[in-house]
Amino acid sequence: MNVNGNPTRTIAPLPDCSGFVIIDQTRLPFRYELRTLYALADVAETISVMRVRGAPLIGATAAYGVAVAMNADCSDAALDAACVTLAATRPTAVNLAWALDRMRVCLQPLPPAERRIVAWAEAAGICDEDVTLNQTIGRHGAGLIRAIAERKTGPVNILTHCNAGWLATVDWGTALAPIYTAFDAGIPVHVWVDETRPRNQGASLTAWELKQHGVPHTVIADNAGGHLMQHGRVDLCIVGTDRTAANGDVANKIGTYLKALAAHDNDVPFYVALPGPTIDWTLPDGRAIPIEERRADEVTCLTGETETGELITVRVTPEGSPAANPAFDVTPARLVTGLITERGVCPASREGLLSLYPERG
Amino acid sequence: MNVNGNPTRTIAPLPDCSGFVIIDQTRLPFRYELRTLYALADVAETISVMRVRGAPLIGATAAYGVAVAMNADCSDAALDAACVTLAATRPTAVNLAWALDRMRVCLQPLPPAERRIVAWAEAAGICDEDVTLNQTIGRHGAGLIRAIAERKTGPVNILTHCNAGWLATVDWGTALAPIYTAFDAGIPVHVWVDETRPRNQGASLTAWELKQHGVPHTVIADNAGGHLMQHGRVDLCIVGTDRTAANGDVANKIGTYLKALAAHDNDVPFYVALPGPTIDWTLPDGRAIPIEERRADEVTCLTGETETGELITVRVTPEGSPAANPAFDVTPARLVTGLITERGVCPASREGLLSLYPERG
Repeated sequence: MNVNGNPTRTIAPLPDCSGFVIIDQTRLPFRYELRTLYALADVAETISVMRVRGAPLIGATAAYGVAVAMNADCSDAALDAACVTLAATRPTAVNLAWALDRMRVCLQPLPPAERRIVAWAEAAGICDEDVTLNQTIGRHGAGLIRAIAERKTGPVNILTHCNAGWLATVDWGTALAPIYTAFDAGIPVHVWVDETRPRNQGASLTAWELKQHGVPHTVIADNAGGHLMQHGRVDLCIVGTDRTAANGDVANKIGTYLKALAAHDNDVPFYVALPGPTIDWTLPDGRAIPIEERRADEVTCLTGETETGELITVRVTPEGSPAANPAFDVTPARLVTGLITERGVCPASREGLLSLYPERG
Repeated sequence: MNVNGNPTRTIAPLPDCSGFVIIDQTRLPFRYELRTLYALADVAETISVMRVRGAPLIGATAAYGVAVAMNADCSDAALDAACVTLAATRPTAVNLAWALDRMRVCLQPLPPAERRIVAWAEAAGICDEDVTLNQTIGRHGAGLIRAIAERKTGPVNILTHCNAGWLATVDWGTALAPIYTAFDAGIPVHVWVDETRPRNQGASLTAWELKQHGVPHTVIADNAGGHLMQHGRVDLCIVGTDRTAANGDVANKIGTYLKALAAHDNDVPFYVALPGPTIDWTLPDGRAIPIEERRADEVTCLTGETETGELITVRVTPEGSPAANPAFDVTPARLVTGLITERGVCPASREGLLSLYPERG
């Protein structure tokens, strides 16, 4: 989507394949800074500290991580080591394992000398496929927005949680793809942006990218969504997911479950947008999805910009008060109106998913 | 409750009734600072910018506000003006109107020359009655905690939202009174403290007062409570309320509704602690409770302490992204397991409330 008026992807290789460029998302929305990664250790650090985040972009970054590892050493041992190192960076995102498996399956059978060039091509392929997937999700989801727009006057008010926008993917996003598609088609939309504590990906990333693209939006505390739904001020919720179980249960940023409960209680449609690779067909339901517990200081401290433009980290809790930080929760399929995939919209159920992905039956 | 080991009230008159002392809660948890208020305008500012907050403490502060106004001028006009000025400081808290009515009913019939001394005595009476009410709420609520403690090993895990602790009252608190009472009686408790964005009253006030009194607690993002309930890590929720409708609907800090939905979905008991004066018998249900919309910069900016001990305000959203800030929501009675009042525990319904307050029937 657009940054400063220019169409921009979140990740791109250097022309000579010596490394690849990412946007350092830990600096947004205050600084727009690009980083070039040349070494496996830098890529692992980048994923681990969430300079890139969002399941699809983590997968793409891991794929390019294997490619930079092949620049240094194309041996079987190096390929194994790269996959092990990258797989350990984030426990929840299924795309990470998916992208690494795909790179390994592609590269392992090749003679080591051929691996480097194929690795870069395969990573680029993963990125291009992600863009295509998301555009297709966008078209399917925009149909839901258009249908609401035809029934009401004024903008369609859409609530989203966390960032499942183009910053979470290579381009377009998952949850935001339908919104960008509708906006670009001239359908009036307005987005309620959940701040998404503790890491504030809504306030910092979703608000930033919507603003860059010109989409009307309003930031709200995570606590406010239920009240807005009670008062008819939300027409539709669309969120992303890090992992979808085979029965339609979805793991997403902590707090998603609370919004799904409120949507259900107020008859507000609650959709989850996801590309096929985030479906974990091995999980019968969401109970077995591992939930990452992140560092307490993400709750006790946060970073913002002072009036004079400095980026400062401040503590917001009493010194010595402990904090807990589960990073994801699981929303049961019964609270999800539908899943928006690259193959269409389906009920959040095993039957619904199999109707779109019959090859998994 | 205790501050630095000393039993402390949140509000107290000077010995010569020239003014009264409050804790500046906007400086907590970073600074423990007392302020002495001598003039009506200072009192109005104090309530309006939330140096004091919490329905019972707002009522007590307004009562002393009338008393300081009587120090300056005991006329009918001054009494009227004081009540009008103070009533306009916060729209939602019913205690504010209740305390002002009580002061007016007490003072209006008196000859102006007698009003000053009676005003100070009446305000002190309101404070003492609040303490007694809260102690009684504490005893009734501690029975619920004790019953859970007898059924399980390990501490009783109680989730609370915002601050309905002693800082919200004159002493003991409403939602926290049962917790302090149980803790002081040796029942093992652990409190999940919702951060309570946007003003962070949980992270800054509830965590601070629990820590000062020595009660085990853990701060969590507002988003985390549903996940903890799904995993059996919450035995009980207790929150306060700013206004309770006659049918048991409760207005409380924004986000309370979301926690009540999660508690209901996971069979976790959800109690609301309230003193009788916060019941608005004129409201048949919660739909008519006015919801205060506060300034957007409470969402876009927040204040914390740097590593070097400075208090700094930072912006956490992109420059120019708008924000909305509804301060309260209404939790329907159907989601409330029971109301803990000074007269006992009752179902959240008109019949339940009338069983404890038959004089309102």
